[in-house]
Amino acid sequence: VRKKFQPTLSHLGEFGLIDRIRKRCRGVDAKLIEGIGDDCAVYSASKNRNQVITTDALVEGVHFDFRTQSAESLGRKALAVNLSDLAAMGAEPRLAVLALGLPSGFPVERIDALYRGLSARCRQYRVALAGGDTVRSPRGFWIALTLVGETRKNRWFRRSGARPGQVIWVSGTLGDSALGLRILSTPAGKSPDLPERVRRYLTGRHLEPEPRLALSQALVRSTIRVGAMIDLSDGLLQDLGHVCRASGVGARLQLERIPVSQPAEKFSLVNNLRLQDWLLGGGEDYELLFTTPREDVKKLKRLIARAGVPVTEIGTVLPDPKVLEVLHRGRPLRQRKSGGGFDHFR
Amino acid sequence: VRKKFQPTLSHLGEFGLIDRIRKRCRGVDAKLIEGIGDDCAVYSASKNRNQVITTDALVEGVHFDFRTQSAESLGRKALAVNLSDLAAMGAEPRLAVLALGLPSGFPVERIDALYRGLSARCRQYRVALAGGDTVRSPRGFWIALTLVGETRKNRWFRRSGARPGQVIWVSGTLGDSALGLRILSTPAGKSPDLPERVRRYLTGRHLEPEPRLALSQALVRSTIRVGAMIDLSDGLLQDLGHVCRASGVGARLQLERIPVSQPAEKFSLVNNLRLQDWLLGGGEDYELLFTTPREDVKKLKRLIARAGVPVTEIGTVLPDPKVLEVLHRGRPLRQRKSGGGFDHFR
Repeated sequence: VRKKFQPTLSHLGEFGLIDRIRKRCRGVDAKLIEGIGDDCAVYSASKNRNQVITTDALVEGVHFDFRTQSAESLGRKALAVNLSDLAAMGAEPRLAVLALGLPSGFPVERIDALYRGLSARCRQYRVALAGGDTVRSPRGFWIALTLVGETRKNRWFRRSGARPGQVIWVSGTLGDSALGLRILSTPAGKSPDLPERVRRYLTGRHLEPEPRLALSQALVRSTIRVGAMIDLSDGLLQDLGHVCRASGVGARLQLERIPVSQPAEKFSLVNNLRLQDWLLGGGEDYELLFTTPREDVKKLKRLIARAGVPVTEIGTVLPDPKVLEVLHRGRPLRQRKSGGGFDHFR
Repeated sequence: VRKKFQPTLSHLGEFGLIDRIRKRCRGVDAKLIEGIGDDCAVYSASKNRNQVITTDALVEGVHFDFRTQSAESLGRKALAVNLSDLAAMGAEPRLAVLALGLPSGFPVERIDALYRGLSARCRQYRVALAGGDTVRSPRGFWIALTLVGETRKNRWFRRSGARPGQVIWVSGTLGDSALGLRILSTPAGKSPDLPERVRRYLTGRHLEPEPRLALSQALVRSTIRVGAMIDLSDGLLQDLGHVCRASGVGARLQLERIPVSQPAEKFSLVNNLRLQDWLLGGGEDYELLFTTPREDVKKLKRLIARAGVPVTEIGTVLPDPKVLEVLHRGRPLRQRKSGGGFDHFR
């Protein structure tokens, strides 16, 4: 069998690579005046808007594994996790820049696939890929993506706006992504019999999260008073803890209200897992958690119906900042100041 | 001897680290509304200005070595190389976000030092450090910095503006940084006797480049017609090649006009090096190369005198895009379409 020639970085060289990337980045350029190819990208900012900026990095072997995720899918995810941060601020995305650390033998095909995934998502969310830096990284691949967006001047969301008495809401269902990661991390032989539909749903939720930009924008355009908002990346308790600390409040959750998908229920049953741990501590949900005054519940329910995004009431903001309480059938499940969830360095 | 306890990331945890960084990032916040601690940083953009964005990554073992560069110095350099990109556009810096890849045992002291260097430079250049992401990177340390700046709406510089007949200028002296890197890379025993002054100057030029923002801003504020501008990071011929390609022109350089520092002259003499290779191909000068019409030479010389920045005429823009020629005492030294310099992947 003749082996197909796979060009690597050493064949292409740095400038060859940049040219290649440039070709893939044409198209969407909302407000981009000068894109890849000069020292900086230049863009025109809107008047009467705030700019927001966020950066997120993904490291091979820590945040993903090429054995279980294609480069194209990774490209989509890299953008999605940054978009989720923008959604949490009530911001609309504008442009992205990318830094890539590439091992020498890294196949060019894989870079192409990465950009294919990235640009597809960029088009979908009208983000201009404004350039970046590619560097040699002898000891492993990584990607650091920076996203710039805009908010209205007087209408955007932060973590510090939760007030006692407000209702706590989450979008979608929780725990799916962490369960999906568990499936992906289980050696092929050792995974239990699982309906393909369940496997595909849960791993999909981990590999290809959908940022909740539509919900966030619907809230921006509404008159609903949003207290605090955050996107769930570290796990429900951990992220709710961030909101409580930033707002100087406590919170009470109702475990049985936390939204669970059917596949998550099925999977935890088959594998004898305590589902509550995955709901409260599982990371990378990329759902939105936010609070509103109780008086706005009706408005919100109308908005939810119109927007077609599932949003569920899961608890209440408390005045005492020392309390973060989970009730199960009316009785406290556990009470702790800061949540479980993932702490990436431990 | 009792060993001093050095906390590492595992002791601190991710959120401890973010808190630590936040404390170090207070102070300069030009237009920063919401800094580190929320999902995105929020800032207020000026009206009637363009935004520019650039990202640059530095990888341990590729772009620096902790044996020859302190973390504090690296922090300063990381900002400087990005500022140099902004200078090349005629932009003023506004804010920075940072992604850090950290091995588990990475000493916290070193992170502190990195931020010390970075924030000192941020204060100096009035950049707000707007946050970032810290991730675990099991296989080596890296830093990716993204810088956002602003230009006037109708006055900024690009690579594509060089026109036949224009004069080519460079700031400062060339080759110092590449020679400094050579000194740093030579094993201690094998380095020739060298006056400490020479060693310190050349290595300093490599480890701590000064971005030419003042010169760039002086040009922005002047009425001098700047054709093209680029910062020299890949080496004179390589970067001039970028300008020529982007502008569809050629260029002729006069070798004996290229500005050389006394230490570079001394060092290349002692080590029997062909200085021209270092002037034409040495990377990381972080000086500015730009072109102006010949009629503006007088104006430029007055500006140079006022600004106190050395700027030297080194050649002329030619109409033929196939020519990139270096003359030595009136005779062509070499002629090639694309320059030598560093190609980071070869």
